Amino acid sequence: MNILYIMFDQLRFDYLVCAGHPTLKTPNIDRIAAMGVRFSNAYTQSPVCGAARMSAYTGRYVSSHGAQWNGHPLRVGEPTLGDHLRDISVGCWLIGKTHMNADAAGMARLGLAPDSIIDARQAECGFDVWCRDDGLWAQGPDGLYDAKRSPYNEFLKSKGYGGDNPWADFANAGSDGEDMASGWFMRNADKPANIAEQDSETPWLTGQAIEFMEQATGNWCAHVSYIKPHWPYIVPAPYHDMYGVDDIKPVVRSDSERTDPHPIYGAFMQGRVGKTFSRDDVRDTVVPAYMGLIKQCDDQMGRLLAYLEDSGALADTMIILTSDHGDYLGDHWMGEKDLFHAPSVKVPLIIYDPRESANSTRGTTCDALVEAIDVTATIIDASGGEVPEHIVEGRTLLPYLAGRVPAQPRSFAISEYDYSKHPVCSALGTTPRDARLFMVATHDWKLIHAEDGFPPMLFDLLNDPDELCDLGRDPAYTAQRAAMYGHLHGWGLRMS
Amino acid sequence: MNILYIMFDQLRFDYLVCAGHPTLKTPNIDRIAAMGVRFSNAYTQSPVCGAARMSAYTGRYVSSHGAQWNGHPLRVGEPTLGDHLRDISVGCWLIGKTHMNADAAGMARLGLAPDSIIDARQAECGFDVWCRDDGLWAQGPDGLYDAKRSPYNEFLKSKGYGGDNPWADFANAGSDGEDMASGWFMRNADKPANIAEQDSETPWLTGQAIEFMEQATGNWCAHVSYIKPHWPYIVPAPYHDMYGVDDIKPVVRSDSERTDPHPIYGAFMQGRVGKTFSRDDVRDTVVPAYMGLIKQCDDQMGRLLAYLEDSGALADTMIILTSDHGDYLGDHWMGEKDLFHAPSVKVPLIIYDPRESANSTRGTTCDALVEAIDVTATIIDASGGEVPEHIVEGRTLLPYLAGRVPAQPRSFAISEYDYSKHPVCSALGTTPRDARLFMVATHDWKLIHAEDGFPPMLFDLLNDPDELCDLGRDPAYTAQRAAMYGHLHGWGLRMS
Repeated sequence: MNILYIMFDQLRFDYLVCAGHPTLKTPNIDRIAAMGVRFSNAYTQSPVCGAARMSAYTGRYVSSHGAQWNGHPLRVGEPTLGDHLRDISVGCWLIGKTHMNADAAGMARLGLAPDSIIDARQAECGFDVWCRDDGLWAQGPDGLYDAKRSPYNEFLKSKGYGGDNPWADFANAGSDGEDMASGWFMRNADKPANIAEQDSETPWLTGQAIEFMEQATGNWCAHVSYIKPHWPYIVPAPYHDMYGVDDIKPVVRSDSERTDPHPIYGAFMQGRVGKTFSRDDVRDTVVPAYMGLIKQCDDQMGRLLAYLEDSGALADTMIILTSDHGDYLGDHWMGEKDLFHAPSVKVPLIIYDPRESANSTRGTTCDALVEAIDVTATIIDASGGEVPEHIVEGRTLLPYLAGRVPAQPRSFAISEYDYSKHPVCSALGTTPRDARLFMVATHDWKLIHAEDGFPPMLFDLLNDPDELCDLGRDPAYTAQRAAMYGHLHGWGLRMS
Repeated sequence: MNILYIMFDQLRFDYLVCAGHPTLKTPNIDRIAAMGVRFSNAYTQSPVCGAARMSAYTGRYVSSHGAQWNGHPLRVGEPTLGDHLRDISVGCWLIGKTHMNADAAGMARLGLAPDSIIDARQAECGFDVWCRDDGLWAQGPDGLYDAKRSPYNEFLKSKGYGGDNPWADFANAGSDGEDMASGWFMRNADKPANIAEQDSETPWLTGQAIEFMEQATGNWCAHVSYIKPHWPYIVPAPYHDMYGVDDIKPVVRSDSERTDPHPIYGAFMQGRVGKTFSRDDVRDTVVPAYMGLIKQCDDQMGRLLAYLEDSGALADTMIILTSDHGDYLGDHWMGEKDLFHAPSVKVPLIIYDPRESANSTRGTTCDALVEAIDVTATIIDASGGEVPEHIVEGRTLLPYLAGRVPAQPRSFAISEYDYSKHPVCSALGTTPRDARLFMVATHDWKLIHAEDGFPPMLFDLLNDPDELCDLGRDPAYTAQRAAMYGHLHGWGLRMS
């Protein structure tokens, strides 16, 4: 059995029809859910790309691997999914984004150079690279994101798209061709991207995945890692106007959230992103584009499924479909990710296991608490390996796929966020070392702990599923907070 | 400035005259203390050789580096003291014991083999090896300790000591030459070792250190790491009868400690080592030998000091003298180490800084809470490096040597112990993953937390300095336990 480990970027858990979205159309992803199990309580290890991905690729918590923010290098020697799979002669290939930064100092210390196979794997999160493209080939608000080679930009140039950076000028710009239609500006989100749909990023990467499968031999796991529906929120025709204002789900927020908010939450709400996404005109422009991007992703899933069916591989390929984190989209007066409300910290997770052992669970939903690192353990387990418990902190999900409760189900889920590089940190006067947040969630409660003497946040998920009422400072909930802290502190003392 | 980082093995913090021992003679170590600062509240990161040493060589807590027991490999890529020093062109040399086991799987994954300089450093805890000798060349109670080459055994053979293992038959056996006089048996501890004093391990290693210094150029730190006064408790003449029963400090224990003890403490007391050392005849035989071993160590410190003076190097050499952990010697009905009473978890720590900046503190005692990993940071700092705070969890002690309180003095000290490989674990029915203990100590209080639902232990160090009364289950101390847990839990959430 081979494994397609598909990861979208910034795809909300509830922006799929199978997860209850009322107006979107996602028939292909829904079909994968109907063939497998959808996990409705799956948490990312960190609501930020880099840290979440390093957890996914190591099976370890952020506090354990230490790569707590975008661009933080994963330390050399940290064992990855690829290492565990190669131990059992299973290839582990990257097609798309990792957000990995190599630990250049560590590699130099060990005398490793990126010109050998082993050393290249160290530089690429343990993957063998079919095609790596991190997908942000532009100067963002904080300068140039990436100086690496972009295979996608090279593809665009080969197709005749001009200029130094067709990624920015065509794939992620509005089709009126002016600079001001850049996809970086939210107001351009309703314009069609300046590119033929089949040349845009999502179809291009799907083509890369199919080309990989056409030549692949032996047992393998392929990490097909899309940049979309991550911003820039701009999508080519016909997706750009497939959804309108009437298709947007109501925003989830309340004025009471802005009254005496938790200081850190308040600072995020007051930040540029929070303020932007709190504007209805931004939501009205961006959310339809975001939905269009998802619809395009779904269509590409259809293309992948068709390839698998036509080639006969569907009966022998496990499909795992997930995201690195979600997107607030204005809910809770927030944009993008960064904090721990469900739209940000929960992720879609669908697993199709073609084997007979999973027949009893096809089309079901599982509400067990699971974490992104559990996917890592599941891939090792499904590939025939033994999960090395002293290294991988994730737990295999195969028992759930077989309709059983595992021996050690999670009684709580953990997520972490380091905001030391975020403007909120200096705004609050927090030292970088203390700029750390921890979420611990059970089925019924969610507590967010902040270092540096801040109070916690607490949500009653049973009676307040929208998380609009922060009970973190309410004296009536002292015992509940203590119980949640008990989980968090027990976790803190684990051997990492 | 060069650095002699001298580590003894199993040397109790209070078995030095400068630390108050009433009958021992340690004039040379006392002289180093008079030249520098003695830290009277220094804690090992773990009361067991291997884990303590991996912390000392990485500057990181046991939970952070993960090598929690003797023989557990330190994972490849874990940055060591040697790595940090080489970054600033300071050599870092090993002369003696490390207890390091190389991460063979990790090295193979990275394509490292021990036949290159970089890779050999990975296999040797980051040190360049002048001479490595772990000093237990025998079949212990659990089989052969070590299959590596023993330079010391080769030295003995070159001197005409016969047999396959002169370490066992001469250096660590009684001088009547019979098998039954093996140093492994406590009852032989009063016999002189079957070897000329100058050929025994401590003088031999001192000779190695002097030979190293004679040829060393450039800036360096040399880790001179003695196996003694670690068992086998046997010492050559004239040290074997230098101390007698009358010289032994009174045992620190009380019958109340055996009444309803904490379950884990109770299990250790009932173990082989605890029972053996609770016998007065064992103490009467072993403690004088242990004191003789320390006196021999002290005389070798005199030899080192003489070399430094004669060569003019004393004015340009920092001396750090410490141990990896202590020895119960029957106190608290315990032997060796393993738990967190002061005789086991506190270590001697003396630092002589030859520079003018330390003139104001010479001959003083500092009672600040410090940890073994702080020595690592101190060495980096004293060598002119910047302590990489995102890697090294220790904090430099140089401010104390200059008579200042550092910006971030420790408000508590942490030590950890993993007893999953100890017979106590199966005796208690604890799963290996839960067989972990944590100590958190302030100046006035010490709490020991045990995973797996056990109650904590609590000692009032101010009113019960001998730690005879466990308040861990006393309802009157609920608030104090909560305060100590606050420290521990905050520490648990650090980024490691």
